[in-house]
Amino acid sequence: MGNSPAFTATPRSPLRVAVAGASGYAGGEVLRLLLAHPAYLDGSLVIGALTAGGNAGATLREFHPHLHPLAERVLAPTDLDSLAGHDVVFLGLPHGHSAALAAQLPDTTVVIDCGADFRLEDADDWQRWYGTDHAGTWPYGLPELTGKREQLTGATRIAVPGCYPTSATLALAPAVAAGIVEPTVQIVAVSGTSGAGKSPRVDLLGSEVMGSARAYGVAGAHRHTPEIKQNLSALAGTPVTVSFTPVLAPMPRGILATCTAPTTASAAEVRAVYEKAYADEPFVHLLPEGALPATGAVVGSNAVQIAVTVDTDAGLLIAIAAIDNLTKGTAGGAVQSMNLAVGLAETAGLPTVGVAP
Amino acid sequence: MGNSPAFTATPRSPLRVAVAGASGYAGGEVLRLLLAHPAYLDGSLVIGALTAGGNAGATLREFHPHLHPLAERVLAPTDLDSLAGHDVVFLGLPHGHSAALAAQLPDTTVVIDCGADFRLEDADDWQRWYGTDHAGTWPYGLPELTGKREQLTGATRIAVPGCYPTSATLALAPAVAAGIVEPTVQIVAVSGTSGAGKSPRVDLLGSEVMGSARAYGVAGAHRHTPEIKQNLSALAGTPVTVSFTPVLAPMPRGILATCTAPTTASAAEVRAVYEKAYADEPFVHLLPEGALPATGAVVGSNAVQIAVTVDTDAGLLIAIAAIDNLTKGTAGGAVQSMNLAVGLAETAGLPTVGVAP
Amino acid sequence: MGNSPAFTATPRSPLRVAVAGASGYAGGEVLRLLLAHPAYLDGSLVIGALTAGGNAGATLREFHPHLHPLAERVLAPTDLDSLAGHDVVFLGLPHGHSAALAAQLPDTTVVIDCGADFRLEDADDWQRWYGTDHAGTWPYGLPELTGKREQLTGATRIAVPGCYPTSATLALAPAVAAGIVEPTVQIVAVSGTSGAGKSPRVDLLGSEVMGSARAYGVAGAHRHTPEIKQNLSALAGTPVTVSFTPVLAPMPRGILATCTAPTTASAAEVRAVYEKAYADEPFVHLLPEGALPATGAVVGSNAVQIAVTVDTDAGLLIAIAAIDNLTKGTAGGAVQSMNLAVGLAETAGLPTVGVAP
Amino acid sequence: MGNSPAFTATPRSPLRVAVAGASGYAGGEVLRLLLAHPAYLDGSLVIGALTAGGNAGATLREFHPHLHPLAERVLAPTDLDSLAGHDVVFLGLPHGHSAALAAQLPDTTVVIDCGADFRLEDADDWQRWYGTDHAGTWPYGLPELTGKREQLTGATRIAVPGCYPTSATLALAPAVAAGIVEPTVQIVAVSGTSGAGKSPRVDLLGSEVMGSARAYGVAGAHRHTPEIKQNLSALAGTPVTVSFTPVLAPMPRGILATCTAPTTASAAEVRAVYEKAYADEPFVHLLPEGALPATGAVVGSNAVQIAVTVDTDAGLLIAIAAIDNLTKGTAGGAVQSMNLAVGLAETAGLPTVGVAP
Repeated sequence: MGNSPAFTATPRSPLRVAVAGASGYAGGEVLRLLLAHPAYLDGSLVIGALTAGGNAGATLREFHPHLHPLAERVLAPTDLDSLAGHDVVFLGLPHGHSAALAAQLPDTTVVIDCGADFRLEDADDWQRWYGTDHAGTWPYGLPELTGKREQLTGATRIAVPGCYPTSATLALAPAVAAGIVEPTVQIVAVSGTSGAGKSPRVDLLGSEVMGSARAYGVAGAHRHTPEIKQNLSALAGTPVTVSFTPVLAPMPRGILATCTAPTTASAAEVRAVYEKAYADEPFVHLLPEGALPATGAVVGSNAVQIAVTVDTDAGLLIAIAAIDNLTKGTAGGAVQSMNLAVGLAETAGLPTVGVAP
Repeated sequence: MGNSPAFTATPRSPLRVAVAGASGYAGGEVLRLLLAHPAYLDGSLVIGALTAGGNAGATLREFHPHLHPLAERVLAPTDLDSLAGHDVVFLGLPHGHSAALAAQLPDTTVVIDCGADFRLEDADDWQRWYGTDHAGTWPYGLPELTGKREQLTGATRIAVPGCYPTSATLALAPAVAAGIVEPTVQIVAVSGTSGAGKSPRVDLLGSEVMGSARAYGVAGAHRHTPEIKQNLSALAGTPVTVSFTPVLAPMPRGILATCTAPTTASAAEVRAVYEKAYADEPFVHLLPEGALPATGAVVGSNAVQIAVTVDTDAGLLIAIAAIDNLTKGTAGGAVQSMNLAVGLAETAGLPTVGVAP
Repeated sequence: MGNSPAFTATPRSPLRVAVAGASGYAGGEVLRLLLAHPAYLDGSLVIGALTAGGNAGATLREFHPHLHPLAERVLAPTDLDSLAGHDVVFLGLPHGHSAALAAQLPDTTVVIDCGADFRLEDADDWQRWYGTDHAGTWPYGLPELTGKREQLTGATRIAVPGCYPTSATLALAPAVAAGIVEPTVQIVAVSGTSGAGKSPRVDLLGSEVMGSARAYGVAGAHRHTPEIKQNLSALAGTPVTVSFTPVLAPMPRGILATCTAPTTASAAEVRAVYEKAYADEPFVHLLPEGALPATGAVVGSNAVQIAVTVDTDAGLLIAIAAIDNLTKGTAGGAVQSMNLAVGLAETAGLPTVGVAP
Repeated sequence: MGNSPAFTATPRSPLRVAVAGASGYAGGEVLRLLLAHPAYLDGSLVIGALTAGGNAGATLREFHPHLHPLAERVLAPTDLDSLAGHDVVFLGLPHGHSAALAAQLPDTTVVIDCGADFRLEDADDWQRWYGTDHAGTWPYGLPELTGKREQLTGATRIAVPGCYPTSATLALAPAVAAGIVEPTVQIVAVSGTSGAGKSPRVDLLGSEVMGSARAYGVAGAHRHTPEIKQNLSALAGTPVTVSFTPVLAPMPRGILATCTAPTTASAAEVRAVYEKAYADEPFVHLLPEGALPATGAVVGSNAVQIAVTVDTDAGLLIAIAAIDNLTKGTAGGAVQSMNLAVGLAETAGLPTVGVAP
């Protein structure tokens, strides 16, 4: 890919980026990040086609009034005509819609899928959870996992992780990889509502969600369960059992994942493992002892706050991670992957400071 | 207690009820419930002294403008002078303040402590978690637990359970008592902010809590851990290991407790156990299969929504409970206990319908 | 109406009440109130048919999990078959749907319309704002307005006021009726999201409304403007000019209406007028000087908090009202009207204490 | 100021910036913006002393965990020792504390006061509203007002406007300056809670503010009234009467100001006036007809959304502005002023894209 002219960003041939599904939350967040990206600001990256399905023909303002510089852009239909001629195409489409579209795009185009289509490696898993034929597996856009950064460098097809898997995997990865926990993990993750997307659903109305916390998708019913299992099992070198319960909380953004696994290690041993694992990771902030993650501290940023300790009475490692589901959990991870794919600095355009309070 | 004239509520001698700590959230919620209690409405229960610590001398309006009928009441100091002559005294005081006050009240006075002072049975446990001398143990105000209803009937000293223990204990009790789970439970409970009380703390400011979820008190650091352990161990007849992580969510009220324990039972077996256990409980609503609890559905009510299932892949029973931490979790449990203590219908004055949306 | 057997509520012939549009917010709130109504509790009022449009066939649980005692009720279609045989029918239908249905119900049935169809007296006004033929005008369900209580007593057709008109009219009525303000009023009213109903709309998603306040319907664009104008003009005996701006705030319930009108009266004169006007009104709470309304104090209640003062620098009377839009602003006003219509105590089943915090 | 070496930012002598009151919301937001400022990123601006009052000695993490790169900085006391040697000093102190401190700093130091001390021109006004001696008047940090940009260029003392005055002044300025409205304006402004600061107050607890809207400071009681009056009167060339009612809404950030003034101009005339006035303003976004401001669209940004129209029935111009009270309303205005003062691009480091949803 390195010798593709598409990725030689020069004043004469800036990197052309398209966003399919621009009216949704993933697409909007990709655009928010791109608008502050140094490559955009210096002209070496341009924002090309913005496309939508049913919303095509409307202006972006109707869906994202916060994206002021692009507000009068008219949304094109999500098809090959609109997306051709771009160097990078972000896909923020409903699950199952990416494969057919991606197949039409040239191999040299960097296609970054924020959907689930290419995350799972096991075709049976895909079939069980999504009910359609497996489209394949793309390099997984979580550079913090061993080996992934290398696979993403120069990649032209990238599967952005799910938001829950991002938080839970990063919370547990060092312990699982180091073999200091048993392979039976439990995760209860509280999420803001934007993770459920922008479809008009009664159960997601403000009136319904404000003032209420509710569980959904218990007992392995959430589609992110096999993705977490896949990540952790690869790190463990053995199948990891995953119990995952998502909880919807009354906030627009944020995931707080509380993760446990049996351990006989001491808190100090565990801490040493995590410090080593994340010492050089620009976005993972291992909190000092006594501090605990808050999603409010990472809103709008690509940061991951992690606290880890041991409950010696219960014999459990407890790791808690806070991310912004739309940033590190979706669009930030996507831009981070794009940076690696096209040879920009991995951290370019990705804030590590949250918007608080 | 049954022959104490104090509890013979007649038109000539109505039940006199005082609330100590009336400016706080527990006290305010007790008053909200009493104002709609049929015994109050028919004059057989009167609301006597309302007392406060530093807030004495002010009117109730300053703290609870929603309690319109009592708004101009002036708060008396929390002392024996104010509280003497009442048949029932609710205590909504900071932990550790109830014992000295209760010792001054006659044995025939029904004293209902919303604080922690008399919940724990083990003096060492109390010392470890609260740092002071153990004051004793009172009948535990959770009638739904085997044997407790009988102890509360006619009792003159009652320890109202903590809000987290109420939710977690009711979620797990049937399974633990039936021996269908192993004695190693994990609880992640999301709570609204009123559970932290009404002290002016920067970390509880609206600006800090809105838009953010955060963990606190991980790895057994929360004082409700030994109380949950005590409840479940008594039911199991063997020590139960408890891992408890509380999470603060941006809502004023509500607890959603996600509880797990290893099991080999099937979902149907588990369900049968829960149906039997809660068949006659007026406040415990076992949800039909597929429905999941939401705290919004129980706001302002004494109801407990419970869903239970089995994650067969993970080998775990998953029980989720939703309560209003101020109602069933504190003041509702207190009034339910009062009803039993003074011979009123257990459900009197306790709504089972939440205020939603 | 008084000699209709339908309204003689006896143990043998309890009042049968139906709710059309039971899956919506207005219908749900009517049911919440009825479930705690003393007539329901003593068996003299029974809850009959619950009907819906597109949601017919589903159980009530799917829409109102908080209405536990009715949760397994199946929704019937909204038609004459379902609604016949009831003494009282509440209509919580989209605007414009009530007239045709009401026309089929017997004259002796008490029909209480929570929609707009029968609020406006002027056919041209109706045509201008709603675009269809005017169906007529029914007694207006705001007993606090002079003369309305008498019209509602024994009425068999009642138009429940809009939520904004309830708050703004009650805030300004005493001053306008007393002639102490000029007939040019301005209203900016902040509303919770349930006022917009339960239709699945992207702009009402929790993700969109949380953390954001936004205006809508400025410059007389909101349909409640002519209703407010009608109320105030009748009181003034002269046309009143009304500027009304609604603002959507991130909360499920509540309206805070800030209303102004030019005055030369002193604060004391104004206060005296309001004290006299509302001295005997059970639901209107004129706050003491210095206290200001908060919607949080009236959540779930039928109370109206009002503060009134004069800005002498600006020469303006400022009256601020807080209501719960679903209770006093819709379903509470409807039940209050029902009580008057069928000869029950006007305040029966209507809380004056809010659920706070 | 231009020849002061302090402001010649070179690699060898970068601009040294201190923030006094760094643990508060204003100070924290200044730091959030500085951390993403291009001058900070290229090393020509360095963040020097961070000081606090009672919080001195603690790390910044305890107050602003989102400011990751500065989290381990220890807060110094707010005194001359800490602040000496800086080129720019931001003051985020309680009202009345800035004057004494500023008097000790060299005239060549750019002192930017986020407090109220130097905003009012009239000493009697100051005395009436703040009760202390008037400290003086500094150039007013609202570059969008005629003549202010010039005064701010190279200034060494700057008074940052209040958050409400920023929104209301920008909403009304074009109309008032053009003389197309009568000088009697009314403002109802909904604000998020961070505008009330970070002091631990019971009425600002999350439990109190969530789910509730409440008025405060009616009838000219809010200290921002004279500041708005001062701004508009200067533009009008005649005293302007201002009625201002602030409303607290359950959100951390944002002000939505609904402003009216009598007019006989048409909507088209009004629009032309506003288009001309704000054509070249980088932060003021005049919305297209039909679009209305939402605070959610400007969260974290320095943008001002304005909609303006005419209610012909009421004879009123209606202008609505949305800002982030902490950004454009405080810290963004402060950094914008700093840019002008030290010769940087006015827009440097100031986002115009909000963080939504």
